[in-house]
This record gives sequence, structure tokens and C-alpha cells, in this order.
Amino acid sequence: MKIIIVFGGISFEHEISIVSAIAMKDVIKDELIYLFLDKNRDFYHIPTNIIKSRLFSLGEYTKYNKVYLSKKSFFTKGVFSNKTIDFDVVLNLSHGGDGEDGILSSLFEFYDIPYLAPRVEACSISSNKFLTKAYALSLNVKTITYKYYNKNDEVIINQYPIIIKPLRLGSSIGVSIVKNKDELEYALDIAYEFDNNVIIEPFIKGIKEYNLAGCKIKDEFHFSIVEEPQKVDFLDFDKKYLDFSRTSTATKADISANLEEKLKSNFKILYNELFEGSIIRCDFFVVEDDVYLNEINSIPGSMANYLFDDFSSLFKNLASNLPKKKQIPITYEYVNKIQASKGK
Amino acid sequence: MKIIIVFGGISFEHEISIVSAIAMKDVIKDELIYLFLDKNRDFYHIPTNIIKSRLFSLGEYTKYNKVYLSKKSFFTKGVFSNKTIDFDVVLNLSHGGDGEDGILSSLFEFYDIPYLAPRVEACSISSNKFLTKAYALSLNVKTITYKYYNKNDEVIINQYPIIIKPLRLGSSIGVSIVKNKDELEYALDIAYEFDNNVIIEPFIKGIKEYNLAGCKIKDEFHFSIVEEPQKVDFLDFDKKYLDFSRTSTATKADISANLEEKLKSNFKILYNELFEGSIIRCDFFVVEDDVYLNEINSIPGSMANYLFDDFSSLFKNLASNLPKKKQIPITYEYVNKIQASKGK
Repeated sequence: MKIIIVFGGISFEHEISIVSAIAMKDVIKDELIYLFLDKNRDFYHIPTNIIKSRLFSLGEYTKYNKVYLSKKSFFTKGVFSNKTIDFDVVLNLSHGGDGEDGILSSLFEFYDIPYLAPRVEACSISSNKFLTKAYALSLNVKTITYKYYNKNDEVIINQYPIIIKPLRLGSSIGVSIVKNKDELEYALDIAYEFDNNVIIEPFIKGIKEYNLAGCKIKDEFHFSIVEEPQKVDFLDFDKKYLDFSRTSTATKADISANLEEKLKSNFKILYNELFEGSIIRCDFFVVEDDVYLNEINSIPGSMANYLFDDFSSLFKNLASNLPKKKQIPITYEYVNKIQASKGK
Repeated sequence: MKIIIVFGGISFEHEISIVSAIAMKDVIKDELIYLFLDKNRDFYHIPTNIIKSRLFSLGEYTKYNKVYLSKKSFFTKGVFSNKTIDFDVVLNLSHGGDGEDGILSSLFEFYDIPYLAPRVEACSISSNKFLTKAYALSLNVKTITYKYYNKNDEVIINQYPIIIKPLRLGSSIGVSIVKNKDELEYALDIAYEFDNNVIIEPFIKGIKEYNLAGCKIKDEFHFSIVEEPQKVDFLDFDKKYLDFSRTSTATKADISANLEEKLKSNFKILYNELFEGSIIRCDFFVVEDDVYLNEINSIPGSMANYLFDDFSSLFKNLASNLPKKKQIPITYEYVNKIQASKGK
């Protein structure tokens, strides 16, 4: 199987996408073709054997071939003719903007390119924390209580500590824990640098957190192990950044079979049909044996490969069984009817 | 102002999009450039003076120039060089699939083309009835109670009549009112022809329905009149089809100032920041002075022009004040930090 990895994009998570993409070399056994999406939204084909993060920070990627998109294909332009890139499937590994907000998924839909990533509705739901909560609640999956503000709203907090998150970012960018009123304004300023809206939740110290990844293939769920992520107040960007390069297997959390089952059943409800075609990681909180959704990572760092026993086979299995779109017949039946009734 | 109207697309509402687009000739006073998106997702430039629905049903549109998309531009290919189309803004008038599901909006975002239409999150929310309800409820806007099913679920109904709707379609396509158990299976079959999921609501005969359109420009709302749509059990496709060509001014509903204010305040909450850049029509039900959201038409038929006093000016005003995306700096700060810490 020939796999195009699309990474980069106009995103606050552009850089961790590079790290994530490079990590795939160690975990996917099939042929990889790297397509970098730069800050001007130009694609470049980076040879797999020379890929390293410095290529991008130094701007050296521009030495390589520019790639264009057309129906069912990616191609490079030549003096006499264009050359198409031979591939089977695209893995969208652009975190945050472009990748997780539905732009790239829509682009691939439009050009009829098979891709492994959340479809556009799933992107909207998982990349916007307000919509994630609305979605979860309508499915009777619990979430932490929250308030939603925009830049011009007055923020009134009755009880500290709280956690402030920009509405749309992942990877803890712009997130602050606020212990008292004095810290509030600065934390809001930081969050509003990244988004015009924020979500504010109570910060529950020492809350148990568990991560579970998985996907559905032909109506059957495939789950990773459950991991209890390393406990710090919250994961700061540098720490997460390094996490995006993870390829070694994680340790299974020491939890009861009952709790594991609960986490899986919440995952199934959330994955639903909406996330078909993607491998996602759900981050849950557990309070007194009740499961709360924290967030849905629809393109998790390094694809959460480190949580799976055999990521490479799972990837290949899903890539070979991507969801099919309903066929829409375009018959002009009604236009013809109207024409007939007009006597034209 | 030069306005490109993009219409058609792979959609069950492909045909009504054609009717909608042609109606714009009568209501927008600026220069119109018609780009038709056909069932193969090829764009064609149809001369404004000859456009008529028969061109499409007879397949004659293929005689005209094929149009391609690239950064900030649409162009036609020539023997010696490509020719770009001069324009100021795109009006996305593709109803249903492609237009309202976020595909075209994403495409225009990707290629940095200014467009008047709902942004991708707004598309996901308004084109999926389950997500519309989840969104409305989280904003404390009432909706009719419902059940959500997929094709494999057993459907149990305690009380008739009910209304069955495919999850993702507009324009009443695939919608049935079911009066008793005998009619259930057939109605489900029809709905499942269009979507793998359905929403079932109680059907409330004689419920009052009111439509209100509007948009926000520079933090100020601009509303249409409130219309009470013509009362039939529900609007069937032929009836709606003709409605999509409406250009004559509608009659203002005879309602209290208090109810009008309630409808507007619900509209504002729903429009929020999510629908910036678009003119939408919200269809509300009113039961005992309580307002319920029925649906959000994010690209309403003929842009709901018939509800506005001066649609052409409103359009131009919004087109000149489209939302701007937050600038995202791509600095490689973290990649450089990691490089430094590695001593490379």
C-alpha cells in the first residue's frame, strides 16, 4: 500500500504536525510519500529518506517539487507534461487548523481522493469545544460543566480554580489554570490571542484522566489499550510537543474491567457514524466512577500509535475499508417537469 | 461589484440550486458571473445573458468554458495561456450537498477566495438535523422533541402522527408524515433512500410556522420581515421547487411585536458568531407563544431575497464586510527549540 502523508497546514499546530508525520516512519510499515503543506498552502513532495524537522524550519523544503491537486490525483508539473503521484490513500496528519477543522477533508472529498481522517462534520464537532460538548450531551455522554464567552463578554467567576481554553485549539495551546481573580485577565488575554471565544471550566485538581483510541471497521470496533497519561497540572505545549513524536508502546492503565468497559461504551457512542474513516483518541475524566468526555482528538498526535499493539495493520485495515459516500443521482427530473408545465 | 454565483454540485438539491441561481438575475443589481458545478464536479462558466434551466437538463452547458480553481482565482485554460476571471466575491448558491455541507466553503477557504456563505462549522451544524438540535439546545433555544435512528435500529413509535426526515436533507426531500403503524415502513424506506439516519418528531397539525431571514454585518443584525409560509401539511418538493424561484416580495405575518422580538432574539442567539459571512433563514414553530427552532437554512432558496426590502444592497453590504480569519503565525519556534535541546 502506498500512503501519502499530508502534514503541516495553516495551523497553530503546524510544527507538531511535522513531528507527528516524521514519527510515522517508525510505525507504518508500508511505503510512505510525504506531502508538506506550507504556510502559503502550497504542497511539496519531501523525499521520505531525507525528511527531518529542520528542513521546514530552515525553509529548505522549497527545494523539492511543488505538488498540485486535481480530480483523483496529486501531480507535479514538468516542462513537457505533468507527472501524477502513484498512491492508494492519504493520511491527513495536519493537526489543528486545515487538518482537524474540515478544510483538508473537504478538499479530498471534492477531488475524490480516498483519505483516512475525520469527515467534515466530525471535524467541526471535535475541533470546537462548545460543539463537542453539545454533541456529547445530546448523546447522553457527560462533560464537565462550562461557560462559553466571547471577547466582548464580561467574565464572572464564582469559584476558583478554573481552566480557560481557547474554543478551537488542541495541544494545550493558550490554556491556563487560574487560581484567583488576579490571574484572570492575563489568562483571558492569552486565550483570546488564539481564538475570539473561550470555554471556562472548573479545574479539578488530581482528576483521573484516561485516554482511549480506536476506530470502527466494517461495523466492528478496534480499541487501543487505555492509558493514564502522565500526571502534571496539565500538559504544556513543550511536553505535548515531545509526546507527538511518541512511538514506543504505552503502559496499560491499572483500572477495573468495569471502568474499561464504561470507557469503551462511551467511545462507541461518540464515534457513532460521525467519525467513520478516522482513528480517534478520546480523553476522558473519571470522577467517582462516572465517565466524562474531556476531548475528542480526531487526528491524535502521532495517530496515538503508541497505544496500539499493531498500529500498522490496523491502519492498513481501516485504509482498505473507508466509508463510501451515498450515490446521488442527478436526473433533471424536476427541471424537465417544470419545463413541461410551462409548455416550453 | 463583480459576483460569481457558484451553483449545482453533487446534491439531491442540484436542480433547485439552478432555479435559485437564475432567480438572482432579478434581485442582484451588480454584475453576475455564473459558474455551474456539474455532477462530475467540473466548473463551467455559463454566460449570464443565456442562462436557463434547460441548458443543464439537456447537457448543453458542456459547450461553455470549463473553469479551474487555484489560489485566489478561477481561470479558463487557453492554448497559449490561462485566463483568470475577474471577480470580487463568490456567492455559494449550491443547496444541500457540496454547498451546505461545508465542502465548497472549505474549498474557498483553502484557495483564499472571498465567499458569501456559511463557514464550515456553520455548515455542519445546519445541514445535519441532529447537530442542529444539539447546537440549539446548548444555546437554550427550544426544539421539537425527536428520536434519532440509523438504518439498522428498530423503530418504536408510541404515538402517531409523526414526521420522518432524512438526517441531512433540506427541501422536504424524503420527508413523510406518518399517521399510523401501517404507513411506517414505507416512510422509513423513503427516508433511508436519502440518508442512513433519520430524525422522527411528533407531527403537530396546524402548528404555527414563521420564517425569518437575516445576517450580522459589523456586529449589527439586519433582519427581513417575518413570513408565515403558506399552510399545507408540509411543503412537498414540487411546491418548494417553485418557491426557490421566488423574487416577489412576501407578505409580513400578522403577529404581535412581542412575538416578532422573540423570534429575532432566538435568531440572534443561533446566528451567534458561527454563521458570520452568511445570510440565513431560520424557520421557527410557535406553540402557545413559545418559540421552537425547526431548521436553519444556511443557504436559503433564492437567498430568501423575497423577505427583504432591498436584498441587493444588503447583499453588497455583507459581501464588503466578510469575516476575516485570525492570522496564524508559523514561526518554527518549537522545532528550533527541540533542535537546540538535541544539540543538533
